[in-house]
Amino acid sequence: MTPIKALIFDVFGTLVDWRTSIARETHLALSPLGIDIDWLAFADAWRAQYQPAMEDVRSGRLPFSKLDALHRRNLDVVLSAFQLNVDEATRQHLNLAWHRLDPWPDVKPGLDALGQHFWLAPCSNGNISLMVDLARRNGLRWDAILGAEVARDYKPKPVVYLSAVNAFDLQPSQTLMVAAHASDLAAAATVGLRTAFIARPDEYGPNTGDRSPGFAVDFVADSLLDLAGQLNQL
Amino acid sequence: MTPIKALIFDVFGTLVDWRTSIARETHLALSPLGIDIDWLAFADAWRAQYQPAMEDVRSGRLPFSKLDALHRRNLDVVLSAFQLNVDEATRQHLNLAWHRLDPWPDVKPGLDALGQHFWLAPCSNGNISLMVDLARRNGLRWDAILGAEVARDYKPKPVVYLSAVNAFDLQPSQTLMVAAHASDLAAAATVGLRTAFIARPDEYGPNTGDRSPGFAVDFVADSLLDLAGQLNQL
Repeated sequence: MTPIKALIFDVFGTLVDWRTSIARETHLALSPLGIDIDWLAFADAWRAQYQPAMEDVRSGRLPFSKLDALHRRNLDVVLSAFQLNVDEATRQHLNLAWHRLDPWPDVKPGLDALGQHFWLAPCSNGNISLMVDLARRNGLRWDAILGAEVARDYKPKPVVYLSAVNAFDLQPSQTLMVAAHASDLAAAATVGLRTAFIARPDEYGPNTGDRSPGFAVDFVADSLLDLAGQLNQL
Repeated sequence: MTPIKALIFDVFGTLVDWRTSIARETHLALSPLGIDIDWLAFADAWRAQYQPAMEDVRSGRLPFSKLDALHRRNLDVVLSAFQLNVDEATRQHLNLAWHRLDPWPDVKPGLDALGQHFWLAPCSNGNISLMVDLARRNGLRWDAILGAEVARDYKPKPVVYLSAVNAFDLQPSQTLMVAAHASDLAAAATVGLRTAFIARPDEYGPNTGDRSPGFAVDFVADSLLDLAGQLNQL
């Protein structure tokens, strides 16, 4: 087997708990305006606009736009759907809630352990500044920020995975894609990357998610520390 | 004045001492083959091919190629000029000498101090993997790896500086370009970045270089720690 040299990571859901963080940030931003809604439902509704917005870029209907810009378009849609009247400054601040997400508890120690042996980069659909803010806020240390903004397209388009592999001057088989979502891993495997599934059963609410990927991956782990342990035994 | 949020850095000459490092690495690679030459002269000759090779890309004569690829083309030229017979494996190893350069002594503590207050990224003509190797080897901590490979063109083309500014979601006036070379700073200033000159008088040999930039910059310092002190007093 070709040795693994680098790990690249999905971020939303795999490393950070977007759902409760977005609910908290929305509450913090909108409750001073006298708004009281189901904050988790708002987070779910905002996230539900995520794939359709990226599909406009993937299909070529929209030129590449950073995720911050897509999030803003989606935020306006969701605020309208919830019939909320929110000023421009609040919208701008709230849109950056995605820069203020909490990691799952194993993520910082897990990345610290994995970084001793492997090059590490996010391979996320989030833009570079979003990744930098998350890393600064949560003490995460990356070797480079790779992903959609560098590739100028969105996962699961193959160019995004291959752009990360190419930036590290590796072969796909030397690169391990780490994600909590089977579709992300399947797309990476199609272009030759190795795959690790991290179970995040609480992503969409407590115990609602899968604990296994449903297809053959190279590693299945329930935390990054678990993955680090498995990789150390190779 | 707009506050500075990010510092972006030239690397070869400004952060790392390419000349004595390349001489050392060439000696290590070629002396086992029975070769004995003026190693510093070889380093200077290899470096002398640097701007002409990038000019082929900047002018559009060559599609964008990573600096590792340009360095390899240049290495073959210089080995021929020195009439040296060197096998392919040694050429491949020697070409990555640029990934094994030593920093000037102030660089690690200087970046550690500056990183407490500012986002930091290299804005170098070196490729991403080269920057990652230098950072890993020398304990340098970056928020992102920006520069030529992300912009897909070479400094001093304006797109390289503006691509870094854009990746950080900043205005040019919020971004400080740090370099030991007046031409690099002049190009950054033309598109609105702020500028800091770091004197590296030993870059091309002891005490051969400029101690001032020769035109108006925002900061002149003799080390990154000096620059950190000046920025802290703003």
